[in-house]
Amino acid sequence: MPELTRSPLAPKRFPRVHPVAGVRLAAGRAGVHYRGRDDLLLVELARGTRVAGVFTQSSMPGAPVDWCRRIVKAGAARALVVNAGNANVFTGQAGHDAVQATVGTTSRLLRCKKEEVFAASTGVIGETLPVDKMTAVLPKLKARLQADAWPKAAKAITTTDTFPKAASATCEIDGKAVTVSGIAKGSGMIAPDMATMLAFVFTDARLPANVLKSVLRQANGQSFNCITVDSDTSTSDTVLLFATGKARHKDVGSASDRRLRSFKTALAAVMRDLAQQVVRDGEGAGKFVTVNVTGARNTGDARGIARAIANSPLVKTAIAGEDANWGRIIMAVGKSGIPANRDKLRLTIGGVLVAKDGARFDGYREDDVVPHMKGDAIDISVDVGLGRGKATVWTCDLTHGYISINADYRS
Amino acid sequence: MPELTRSPLAPKRFPRVHPVAGVRLAAGRAGVHYRGRDDLLLVELARGTRVAGVFTQSSMPGAPVDWCRRIVKAGAARALVVNAGNANVFTGQAGHDAVQATVGTTSRLLRCKKEEVFAASTGVIGETLPVDKMTAVLPKLKARLQADAWPKAAKAITTTDTFPKAASATCEIDGKAVTVSGIAKGSGMIAPDMATMLAFVFTDARLPANVLKSVLRQANGQSFNCITVDSDTSTSDTVLLFATGKARHKDVGSASDRRLRSFKTALAAVMRDLAQQVVRDGEGAGKFVTVNVTGARNTGDARGIARAIANSPLVKTAIAGEDANWGRIIMAVGKSGIPANRDKLRLTIGGVLVAKDGARFDGYREDDVVPHMKGDAIDISVDVGLGRGKATVWTCDLTHGYISINADYRS
Repeated sequence: MPELTRSPLAPKRFPRVHPVAGVRLAAGRAGVHYRGRDDLLLVELARGTRVAGVFTQSSMPGAPVDWCRRIVKAGAARALVVNAGNANVFTGQAGHDAVQATVGTTSRLLRCKKEEVFAASTGVIGETLPVDKMTAVLPKLKARLQADAWPKAAKAITTTDTFPKAASATCEIDGKAVTVSGIAKGSGMIAPDMATMLAFVFTDARLPANVLKSVLRQANGQSFNCITVDSDTSTSDTVLLFATGKARHKDVGSASDRRLRSFKTALAAVMRDLAQQVVRDGEGAGKFVTVNVTGARNTGDARGIARAIANSPLVKTAIAGEDANWGRIIMAVGKSGIPANRDKLRLTIGGVLVAKDGARFDGYREDDVVPHMKGDAIDISVDVGLGRGKATVWTCDLTHGYISINADYRS
Repeated sequence: MPELTRSPLAPKRFPRVHPVAGVRLAAGRAGVHYRGRDDLLLVELARGTRVAGVFTQSSMPGAPVDWCRRIVKAGAARALVVNAGNANVFTGQAGHDAVQATVGTTSRLLRCKKEEVFAASTGVIGETLPVDKMTAVLPKLKARLQADAWPKAAKAITTTDTFPKAASATCEIDGKAVTVSGIAKGSGMIAPDMATMLAFVFTDARLPANVLKSVLRQANGQSFNCITVDSDTSTSDTVLLFATGKARHKDVGSASDRRLRSFKTALAAVMRDLAQQVVRDGEGAGKFVTVNVTGARNTGDARGIARAIANSPLVKTAIAGEDANWGRIIMAVGKSGIPANRDKLRLTIGGVLVAKDGARFDGYREDDVVPHMKGDAIDISVDVGLGRGKATVWTCDLTHGYISINADYRS
């Protein structure tokens, strides 16, 4: 497969990522699937690190997901190992054995429990993971652990991504400085629920696992659960939030504590940034699309309608063609199977009123939205005329590039 | 938009369609949207014709769907009017007025009640239907009604279809000959439930409306509800079954009467043929795909899993690329959200065992399925290892052609 062209929606440059006290990273070449590039990431976490996670809702989860789901309950973490190129999914007992070999080697190297070593894999499904290649490289990675290896770390976990993804923010808890930094990978097989890709977020905040779990779920609902590329959900989706506890703030025992306000904002911003970068790297994406739905019976309904619009191949191809084919948006609302009032429905594209009260708006002229359709950020807002439920979903268009990436080359 | 190339999956020729006693058809040019081609169909039905229908489950149905849904309850029909090029959807009061004008003119021409005139429209959404152009042509169509105008009728109702669709069968009820003939249109915006296109089936059987309703639902469950092209459901989907009562068999009062066996088989065959032709004309389709799911908890679960596979963009693009990327099939089963036993899952492609017991089959060699992937009929069978539920769904691949039709040209 030829080198993929960097997405036209990619950020101009890799962001500045603040180091997180208690986090050290190293990337290297294990040759799991790719040649001539880093494909293995080791992250060492300070003693006392707490963790929370959310995982794919697929009924065919990979062996690493099975493992993380089991150990995350205890809430303690000392390491994370991620490989790219092989997802270790649908690999039966061999897949579980491979996870055990990985976490076993890592636990011996870092002198911690196996149950404190998290693992994630991404890539081809159904191939046995060449775990010996990974365990052979891990000692070298341990020797190279650094606090500022974020760019290499972000690159090592990519597969069909056309750019590495990271985001970082600073905030305060109780007047003390706290950092939140994260990396993510993902470009296809992206749809809620839930995470639909790999994302690892690190903070030096000192928070118990139950609080972490609660803030992670909240931030996830505003970020990774709001994106979709192709409606396909991966078997490996994993979002992990690690808190090293190195920050000097006082104890916070509840997720609803007001002292967490700044932290929650920073966490949501980092996760939203990462999630939107995944959409911006959607396979073949040419346009970044924001779908706002209001007037639904409740939030869940609003999200369901927004996803129906965002996942509709006919809507996505119309956007790719810069065609203000608003009838397809109406179609997508209709097909969602979720209550909407046809005769009160209101639609705007790029802020231009297109339809209201169940018919095209008299004053609508297609020329008014043409400049918006030609841009690379498309805004669709639909009010379905029933209640106060609202939601936003981000997606991209469906182009020849998606077909080329997924059909023209063997993966 | 340039003339579309005939689908490579199209039948070699238009089928022989048996006339149905009591049915006369005429097609003509109203210029609703297209120029230089027939776009209006009038069907006259003998006095005493009974009717049943199934309609889109969209919450944004077109005005003709609203009308048909209302009048079908009485079960009597004398005429059908269909136009192509404008769907009369999301057109508010003007849309309802247009339907009234159409059925009003037709009822005066054929001397029947308005409530016996069925109407269907297909094409652009949100544009007012130029109904005067239609009512001006209807008298000419009435003068040209013929029993054998099936090819012209099938052609007049097409939009982005690349070939006209018809199917026909003969059978017997109680030893007397009975005919079933139908036409359909559809190529994109195709997904259950339900019909996802327009189909009109005619028979000379003498059956009360409640029996018709029952046999139609049964046949629909084995035909139009088993197809999907792009997961998008139209606002206009309509399947109508008309029975003129001209056949000479004795009264049949119940849908479970054993004398209907031959008729049910013929009806299901005609509807399955029409449904599969819609898939064979799927926008950009290069391959006809059959997805069989067995071992689900029940039929509904099996159909849900089959649809998840059939609608997955990653599965459909892999098939377009002739890539036996079976991991994507596992992914699609997993994302369906429907119970499946990963560790008992069994997958065959083109009859070749690929995976069993939650892992790739040891004896599987990709070379064994390569010839099958290069053919134009792809068979995927998945057993999810839980129960006895089974279902079949037909779909097509996702190609550059789909993107070209829906993005590159303005519709």
